[in-house]
Amino acid sequence: MHSPPHKHGHAPHQHADAPTRHGDAPNHSRSVARHRAAVAALLAPLLTEAGAETLTLRAALGKGLASDIAAPLSLPPFANSQMDGFAINSADLPEGGAELRVVDPVPAGATPAALKRGTAAPIMTGAMIPAGADAVVPVEAAVPDRFPAPGAASTVWLPATVAGTFVRSAGSDIAAGERALASGSFLGPGQLGLLAGLGIGEVTVHRPLKVLLATTGDEVVEPGQPLTAGKIYDANGTLLESAMRQAGLAVVRTAIASDRPEELRALLRRHAGTVDLIVTTGGVSKGAYEVVRQAMEGQSAEFVHVAMQPGGPQGIGTFDGVPFLGFPGNPVSCLVSFEMFLRPVLSELFGAPVARTAIRARLAHGLTSPEHKHQVRRGSFQADGTVRLEGGESSHLMHALAGSNALVQVPAGISALAEGDEVEVWML
Amino acid sequence: MHSPPHKHGHAPHQHADAPTRHGDAPNHSRSVARHRAAVAALLAPLLTEAGAETLTLRAALGKGLASDIAAPLSLPPFANSQMDGFAINSADLPEGGAELRVVDPVPAGATPAALKRGTAAPIMTGAMIPAGADAVVPVEAAVPDRFPAPGAASTVWLPATVAGTFVRSAGSDIAAGERALASGSFLGPGQLGLLAGLGIGEVTVHRPLKVLLATTGDEVVEPGQPLTAGKIYDANGTLLESAMRQAGLAVVRTAIASDRPEELRALLRRHAGTVDLIVTTGGVSKGAYEVVRQAMEGQSAEFVHVAMQPGGPQGIGTFDGVPFLGFPGNPVSCLVSFEMFLRPVLSELFGAPVARTAIRARLAHGLTSPEHKHQVRRGSFQADGTVRLEGGESSHLMHALAGSNALVQVPAGISALAEGDEVEVWML
Repeated sequence: MHSPPHKHGHAPHQHADAPTRHGDAPNHSRSVARHRAAVAALLAPLLTEAGAETLTLRAALGKGLASDIAAPLSLPPFANSQMDGFAINSADLPEGGAELRVVDPVPAGATPAALKRGTAAPIMTGAMIPAGADAVVPVEAAVPDRFPAPGAASTVWLPATVAGTFVRSAGSDIAAGERALASGSFLGPGQLGLLAGLGIGEVTVHRPLKVLLATTGDEVVEPGQPLTAGKIYDANGTLLESAMRQAGLAVVRTAIASDRPEELRALLRRHAGTVDLIVTTGGVSKGAYEVVRQAMEGQSAEFVHVAMQPGGPQGIGTFDGVPFLGFPGNPVSCLVSFEMFLRPVLSELFGAPVARTAIRARLAHGLTSPEHKHQVRRGSFQADGTVRLEGGESSHLMHALAGSNALVQVPAGISALAEGDEVEVWML
Repeated sequence: MHSPPHKHGHAPHQHADAPTRHGDAPNHSRSVARHRAAVAALLAPLLTEAGAETLTLRAALGKGLASDIAAPLSLPPFANSQMDGFAINSADLPEGGAELRVVDPVPAGATPAALKRGTAAPIMTGAMIPAGADAVVPVEAAVPDRFPAPGAASTVWLPATVAGTFVRSAGSDIAAGERALASGSFLGPGQLGLLAGLGIGEVTVHRPLKVLLATTGDEVVEPGQPLTAGKIYDANGTLLESAMRQAGLAVVRTAIASDRPEELRALLRRHAGTVDLIVTTGGVSKGAYEVVRQAMEGQSAEFVHVAMQPGGPQGIGTFDGVPFLGFPGNPVSCLVSFEMFLRPVLSELFGAPVARTAIRARLAHGLTSPEHKHQVRRGSFQADGTVRLEGGESSHLMHALAGSNALVQVPAGISALAEGDEVEVWML
């Protein structure tokens, strides 16, 4: 991969935030979709058989299934009652109903004796329908509308019914051999519950990718250290590590790298052999000190400009053969880069995390957007179906981000939207 | 608490699913809102100071904040540049621009020397604005549009600008002393990133509630065991444990309890001293063998019918003083009970998990619903803003649940909806 030329003007009145000498001319930036496809191509080789592991259902929560699973049995395994009532043969109940002799009850979990014609067996929800019975009459439709004491000889009047009523037939949920879950399914409560119901105790899932996360910058110090003039605390490390862990990645953090390229290079080299992916923050634009760009010299990596605001400058390639993504240095740009590029590719390739829900919402205020860029604003989706923008366009606004629950997507080609206009919103 | 009388008819043609002798007469069932309020009242006493703990940011991911946090410093802590460019005094640039002498660059992380009038200091994004400068001109607006080599004496032509341009002023994100996060905030990546940026290393959060989860039923066997006639595998344990763990609860599982009340009672008693909440499944309706009802005799608990389908029969109270919720026995009823009652109360009281996103969607098909009940259907929310129902009303349909990503809410009072009608959907 080679870095394409980026030499064109930038109009300051567009308030682009990230450090940039790249303008928004559509011919020189790549689209969000194109960069996402490049990230997918970079990570696709990680989708190997060696990247799968077999886990108990408990350990598999939140992971992506690595193969199809067929149902080893039918659910329900046998016809059973949907109600507490009387198992009967519908042919014994003419129009107008009939009085039937009550026989021994059918408890749940047992194989009942066959039902003799002309009799009614008390049956509990979930219990097996006896041979010879074809329907259940709910106890509240019976006269009397209660079960007789066990052992007491008695009769019950029951109304007419049709065969199959209140019977859950064998295989009505899923038939043996049918595909229960497709490869790539996210394993949440519903999916794991189904597998448990099928008696399956272990599943093969995609192993979590191990990511080296390196934040950079001479001006950045670890929270907890004293803050001298000109310095800021590192928000990116915590922000991205949290987002990555929520997405199921195993994260290796390094100490904050300085702006010396040889130091960053040594740090990356130290970890490259043990991780699946390297993610850096900062140092990817066209300033005088761009440590990540400099550290990646000689590697197969390019530094591109995506037509997106924030998060335009992006690095992509490999470092010593390990997939590498270089996110820009501002916190909001980092999170937007993660949500727009890395997270959706993980969902698509590995089945986990769950893809963000994209919904339509009405803007609570108007907005402007650079026409040739895809703008991503932070917002709060409200119960009334509107979305309120939180903070402005600027990518340093962490407080506004912390008050948001959604990303507002303003595609390229749109320069302004009015209050009430519909936008696509991704729920965080 | 005493169990209210429940004696009224049930109309079988309404296809109520859960075992029931309770009808849907509105006077005898409690509403979803009323039962949710009862669950909130049951759990509110757990919101104590002893229930909070102080954790590192890393360990606090996904938890609820137990106190307000004020910003100990402003963000940004100092005025800094939003662009790579030249720090200048706007008074030095008349309309038409001017040629200024270039002085030493301002690196990020340093305290720069004061800017002399008539000069321009190369400045990188995020670097401190020198005293005497009041604006930044982006490098691409300069002539020449690049930084001179360090140390080389040079001049640059810059266009006029106004004070404040491309300057992020101190405190423009958040001012010292301002509330950064409110008590009860969910701590996700954005919130933890803000705290890190503020230099905060530890937070006080709500300790995870410890839940005893006991599934019951003579017909239920553990996945992995042989399945004899009349038996089914336990899906509820895996389903609910997964949902609870996703919601941040610490879950203690018991072996499946039989239908013998004294055995269940002994099992609950063994764990009651070490948990915050007991949740059981099954045995709460009006059948002949209702083990949870029987085990709770003499305890301060009631067995009520909520006007909801599925999930109508519910137990609530205390067992030996420990809060107790008895969910019904069908898997879908269990999950709906958790999502409608326990999960929203946890979000409301403890700030975690994040409340489900409620959105409006158009039905892809018509549906019917028992008029006096709140029906909860499973569905898949589609990219086009419609929701497709998965499976029927029946609460045993695990396969359909596993193919769903949403709960479709059909409030009481509605007996039918048509294709295209709008419904509220909760994203799972």
